Amino acid sequence: MENTMKAIRTAIFGTGFMGRVHLEAARRVESVEVAAIGGRNAAAARHLGESFSVPTIATDYREILRDPAIDAVHICTPNAQHFSMTKDALQAGKHVLCEKPLATSVEHGEELVALARRQEVRNCVCHNLRFYPMVQQMRRMREAGDLGEILVVQGTYSQDWLLYETDWNWRVEAEAGGPSRCMADIGSHWFDMAEHVTGLQVTSLCADLQTFHPTRKRPKHAVETFANKILGAEDYLETAVDTEDFGAVLFRMGGGARGAVTASQVSAGRKNRLSLEIYGTRSSVAWDQERPDELWAGHRNAANQIFVKDPSLLKPAARSYADLPGGHSEGYDDTFKQIFRRFYGSIRDASIGQHGGASEYPQFVDGLRQLTILNAALQSNRTRGWVDVPAPGSKE
Amino acid sequence: MENTMKAIRTAIFGTGFMGRVHLEAARRVESVEVAAIGGRNAAAARHLGESFSVPTIATDYREILRDPAIDAVHICTPNAQHFSMTKDALQAGKHVLCEKPLATSVEHGEELVALARRQEVRNCVCHNLRFYPMVQQMRRMREAGDLGEILVVQGTYSQDWLLYETDWNWRVEAEAGGPSRCMADIGSHWFDMAEHVTGLQVTSLCADLQTFHPTRKRPKHAVETFANKILGAEDYLETAVDTEDFGAVLFRMGGGARGAVTASQVSAGRKNRLSLEIYGTRSSVAWDQERPDELWAGHRNAANQIFVKDPSLLKPAARSYADLPGGHSEGYDDTFKQIFRRFYGSIRDASIGQHGGASEYPQFVDGLRQLTILNAALQSNRTRGWVDVPAPGSKE
Amino acid sequence: MENTMKAIRTAIFGTGFMGRVHLEAARRVESVEVAAIGGRNAAAARHLGESFSVPTIATDYREILRDPAIDAVHICTPNAQHFSMTKDALQAGKHVLCEKPLATSVEHGEELVALARRQEVRNCVCHNLRFYPMVQQMRRMREAGDLGEILVVQGTYSQDWLLYETDWNWRVEAEAGGPSRCMADIGSHWFDMAEHVTGLQVTSLCADLQTFHPTRKRPKHAVETFANKILGAEDYLETAVDTEDFGAVLFRMGGGARGAVTASQVSAGRKNRLSLEIYGTRSSVAWDQERPDELWAGHRNAANQIFVKDPSLLKPAARSYADLPGGHSEGYDDTFKQIFRRFYGSIRDASIGQHGGASEYPQFVDGLRQLTILNAALQSNRTRGWVDVPAPGSKE
Amino acid sequence: MENTMKAIRTAIFGTGFMGRVHLEAARRVESVEVAAIGGRNAAAARHLGESFSVPTIATDYREILRDPAIDAVHICTPNAQHFSMTKDALQAGKHVLCEKPLATSVEHGEELVALARRQEVRNCVCHNLRFYPMVQQMRRMREAGDLGEILVVQGTYSQDWLLYETDWNWRVEAEAGGPSRCMADIGSHWFDMAEHVTGLQVTSLCADLQTFHPTRKRPKHAVETFANKILGAEDYLETAVDTEDFGAVLFRMGGGARGAVTASQVSAGRKNRLSLEIYGTRSSVAWDQERPDELWAGHRNAANQIFVKDPSLLKPAARSYADLPGGHSEGYDDTFKQIFRRFYGSIRDASIGQHGGASEYPQFVDGLRQLTILNAALQSNRTRGWVDVPAPGSKE
Repeated sequence: MENTMKAIRTAIFGTGFMGRVHLEAARRVESVEVAAIGGRNAAAARHLGESFSVPTIATDYREILRDPAIDAVHICTPNAQHFSMTKDALQAGKHVLCEKPLATSVEHGEELVALARRQEVRNCVCHNLRFYPMVQQMRRMREAGDLGEILVVQGTYSQDWLLYETDWNWRVEAEAGGPSRCMADIGSHWFDMAEHVTGLQVTSLCADLQTFHPTRKRPKHAVETFANKILGAEDYLETAVDTEDFGAVLFRMGGGARGAVTASQVSAGRKNRLSLEIYGTRSSVAWDQERPDELWAGHRNAANQIFVKDPSLLKPAARSYADLPGGHSEGYDDTFKQIFRRFYGSIRDASIGQHGGASEYPQFVDGLRQLTILNAALQSNRTRGWVDVPAPGSKE
Repeated sequence: MENTMKAIRTAIFGTGFMGRVHLEAARRVESVEVAAIGGRNAAAARHLGESFSVPTIATDYREILRDPAIDAVHICTPNAQHFSMTKDALQAGKHVLCEKPLATSVEHGEELVALARRQEVRNCVCHNLRFYPMVQQMRRMREAGDLGEILVVQGTYSQDWLLYETDWNWRVEAEAGGPSRCMADIGSHWFDMAEHVTGLQVTSLCADLQTFHPTRKRPKHAVETFANKILGAEDYLETAVDTEDFGAVLFRMGGGARGAVTASQVSAGRKNRLSLEIYGTRSSVAWDQERPDELWAGHRNAANQIFVKDPSLLKPAARSYADLPGGHSEGYDDTFKQIFRRFYGSIRDASIGQHGGASEYPQFVDGLRQLTILNAALQSNRTRGWVDVPAPGSKE
Repeated sequence: MENTMKAIRTAIFGTGFMGRVHLEAARRVESVEVAAIGGRNAAAARHLGESFSVPTIATDYREILRDPAIDAVHICTPNAQHFSMTKDALQAGKHVLCEKPLATSVEHGEELVALARRQEVRNCVCHNLRFYPMVQQMRRMREAGDLGEILVVQGTYSQDWLLYETDWNWRVEAEAGGPSRCMADIGSHWFDMAEHVTGLQVTSLCADLQTFHPTRKRPKHAVETFANKILGAEDYLETAVDTEDFGAVLFRMGGGARGAVTASQVSAGRKNRLSLEIYGTRSSVAWDQERPDELWAGHRNAANQIFVKDPSLLKPAARSYADLPGGHSEGYDDTFKQIFRRFYGSIRDASIGQHGGASEYPQFVDGLRQLTILNAALQSNRTRGWVDVPAPGSKE
Repeated sequence: MENTMKAIRTAIFGTGFMGRVHLEAARRVESVEVAAIGGRNAAAARHLGESFSVPTIATDYREILRDPAIDAVHICTPNAQHFSMTKDALQAGKHVLCEKPLATSVEHGEELVALARRQEVRNCVCHNLRFYPMVQQMRRMREAGDLGEILVVQGTYSQDWLLYETDWNWRVEAEAGGPSRCMADIGSHWFDMAEHVTGLQVTSLCADLQTFHPTRKRPKHAVETFANKILGAEDYLETAVDTEDFGAVLFRMGGGARGAVTASQVSAGRKNRLSLEIYGTRSSVAWDQERPDELWAGHRNAANQIFVKDPSLLKPAARSYADLPGGHSEGYDDTFKQIFRRFYGSIRDASIGQHGGASEYPQFVDGLRQLTILNAALQSNRTRGWVDVPAPGSKE
């Protein structure tokens, strides 16, 4: 027997929580071979590589970029490194899938968008949350006109893993995570989903951000993202914090829709609650990431509805986002399989999205869009007033 | 056998939906006799009176106010009549329980507060929603320090009964309902509850209001509140609308808490969803009026909690707000029994709340407080910016 | 003004938890006057009477039965007294509304059914739980064919107020409560609702009952139903218990439907969870008393549905069971208002249900039906096998 | 760099829905290489093999068994083939992971248990549902004594994918699926979980099974499991069905616990609802597979609890079953990763479970246990009475 389908050879940069998630998910996608791992932590990179028979391990990611057999790379490092690593990968001619945020400034985001276009490579920013089947169902219901005209968009993205003064992570430091934390980390997921699902764009906003803990106790040793909760007793260093714990935003969208959202990393009991509610002239939808397989649809003159994820109940265009039968839950890891499948599909098939077709996955322009909204939120918070949000530039 | 306990004789003004609710609830309270009904609709007043053996019926409420045997009155008429009827009742020396809003302007509210104080009568504004057992449980948990310092307060009050252009009610008309609709009718309930439960006060806010239907089709015949949904075919008149369908508000509270809320009467599928979420440094609580017997408490380092209403699980100070055993639901009507019981208790016992003691029910100053917040929201919407909210004046 | 509608004069026998519930609810019904209270606890009866201006109080209920001005009575005493008090009331020619169970044996139940028929009075057994608006919605959906043929009926009635060995109540004693406790007290509500909603009847069953606490610690002083949970420290007497804490039942219904149910008073965390699920060839419904205003409808080829109680969404025949607008919760107390309204309506209007029309409320034959089912369950438990359940006799 | 960790080489037999699920999950496990795929459908096997660079594809699984380089096999074929394929694999000296049921008779199950013991290979039956993090949390809470003594165990496993007469799948045919369908397919998952979580064993039971559709319309072309719902119009053959659509079971467990469960494939709106509720003398737990990341804990004298899956909140012994941070959902596919990780771990480390240690995953004796319970249920249904369930034989 002969294997006639050539696998795309890909590399993972970063060996933390997200690197592991990308590695596993990439191995679930057809015709993709994880051929290299880049990580400054040599032991972590070696362990991961050995476990999954990855032939190449490097502590300097540039070595991997120099390998012409590598087709694509995943950037899974801390935020502040995204720009330079992505730029290097683009210049090396690789297809790039970058974890969000694309960069930590609008200018850097614009540079990457332009460079990716010039290099004519596939580019993806990992707004994976779009890829829950029920999020796609909301989007497809809106496209089908089920919601009518959209009036109100509201919700929250709330977590509690940074509630205590003793909670620490590299994301707390502006140097590693960028000038915004809560709005950049999770607020950007919310706005990406809100614009993706509604098909509308935020035109103006008014934001109020707050750093409830102006100082935090930094542990003397490294802590993995989300791992703070199970720390034992530690020695801490009192450290000033200049990234926000919380943000609240009023906004307006094209088409007359109004909205409000909060983002919080200090909301006790909320582990990963991205709640998005959209109210239209015909009906409404509401979704909560903590129960991702459910979708609520609200009606004025009929009973409300609860969709339990079931391919047979999804809009045809949403069906391919669910791999499992009704009631067989698909979770966070499965969203990566879905986004990667589409990213690699577009590498394999040059015709996808080239002639004005809608992109099947979020691209660098979408990452830039979130930097633009975030920039407006920071400005609004500084000036304590409403700020217009520029429309996104032209896409290819 | 001899009845030694003299009943308080009370009157109900208004024979619509709220009048009926007040009548029924008053009959559930110990030692209260509904002795008179005042209503311009003579047939409705007579029917109600005969059904419940109410001896006096009048189409002119002033006749009832002239009766010295009447101790107290309930004002259940459309908003625009609250001020003058309450003023007349106060001047007649009656104890007054007024449906919210207390008036349609801050000035009128201040006048009523001052007059009630001069007349030395009991005064209550019917923010009955405070009286769900689980709302009191939230309040008592906060008082006990269970929440720690409050960081975030958020939620919504969403309904759908005015979603369609063909939905009509007297509340739509500024003339009958006052200059604000959605914020005044339901937003005020939300802010009253938020301040009551947190013990904090809104210090500044930024509001964005919207009238999605600038015109509505007014039916040629009268429609009862909430009854529009089951109307048959009708003839309508196209009518301009100047009250808002929706409001979104960012706000700050004393103590550094931040908040966001939306109020909407156009949110399909939400029938009467008042959702209030309070996040503190120790724990959180969340409540939804559509499931009033449940309370969610959120924790960072322990499982979250769901209280099913059960007197044995309530804080001692909240226990008297629940009449029924665990799992025996108490609903909207039961909140009126609770508020009336306390109002009449204070008439019977002159010592209650006279010497700086906390009031057991919302008084005219609380109604005035909501007019103040509403006024700030309207101003913020006009000026498109943040507005300071004056602190409440001194209470007796 | 003249009151032309003569009120029906009624009496309440029993001054405990249920007596108070009946009293309040009766006062909410049009044209009913609570004219007498009978209670062996003179102080309790007097207090209740004075509070609600009830003119007649008696410690011997027979005095009240001798008063020809009394039209109807409510029997709210412990189970073992139901038979004799109801019999006396019927013989006195009164209309009788008896709390469930109607009696503690099938024979007594049959005697009361026959006597009520001879006396030609209105008779009602208080299966009030039928009167939640959403229960009626289930029934009306079934009548309309929405469910198709019924395949499966399942659920539970679970409480936790008798979980501990130290929990005590008169219901624990066979002498006061009858030979069955859990099945009689709450299992009977479940079967009444299941037969009422499905329109089918249990034809055979297999039951397994269990007394987990063969002895309980009886407090030396009286304890009100449900009040045990908030007792302080007490002196107890070790007492043998011969009524069951738990029952599980398999059953078959006419039409080929199959079912299973559990009833429990020892299920920690379940306060009053009556869950009824009905699966048909077209669709399903599920309801839980702890969230009474919600109804789930299940579909194979469409999204499931959640009804939030809203009169405009109810089947027309269910609409009159809801007094409040959408999302304004109606609770346990409100079911009594609904059942009493119909009982008194049938006293006022002799034409109701006389010529083969369906009864609007559960009658003594329905109480007898539950005694029959209970009797079969007790027999099945003794014989450890399936037992046929006799069909109900003819109704008037 | 050199890969020092030798991967275990495994084969997947079966290329349907389950084969694909096993393939993906095996690729997520450390140091496992999927080296062969066996499937009678050559095209399906080839496609799967090419997509994932699997070097060996065979239409006769025996070819693969003859390859000494293959260490282990997964049996993912229809039920009736499990026995012979597993037997062949054991005789070839392979470690075997067999989809449930292990066989279609107790005798065959016993033969496989004995053979596996003689061959001294690792053996696993794929009761993957145990591996939801929240199921392990229930188990560990029980082990820690949080529940006290167990009183009541109840629940259901309900689906709707075989509701209609036109629904067809190989499982409907006794020849391919075995003599029992609903009880064997999903009832066995429920009983496995109930015994695993409680640590108790069913000692006697009484079952009532029902085939609501005695004939079904069989499509002329093959249909994948669960895929029937999205079929277009088809030609069907009327076919007699002798496997059950529904079963209800009363049961007793060691330690005095009582229980009831239903299993159904005809319950409209229930997609994959495995609900397990366990009530103990101290507290209760309830879990539903349709919301797998949530766990309800019930309390008599405290608020009930809702765990949102969060490693920091899990019992230490349950923590390793969750790979993702709080609120990041883990679904059906993730349970396979967890079970496979432990199966392959035991191949790699010969010391695991060899000296009386508890097995970390369900073994053939556990598969045999479910055949024993199923056999008792079938017998009880035939005899319409209670049947004792033999205790499991000794384990190694």
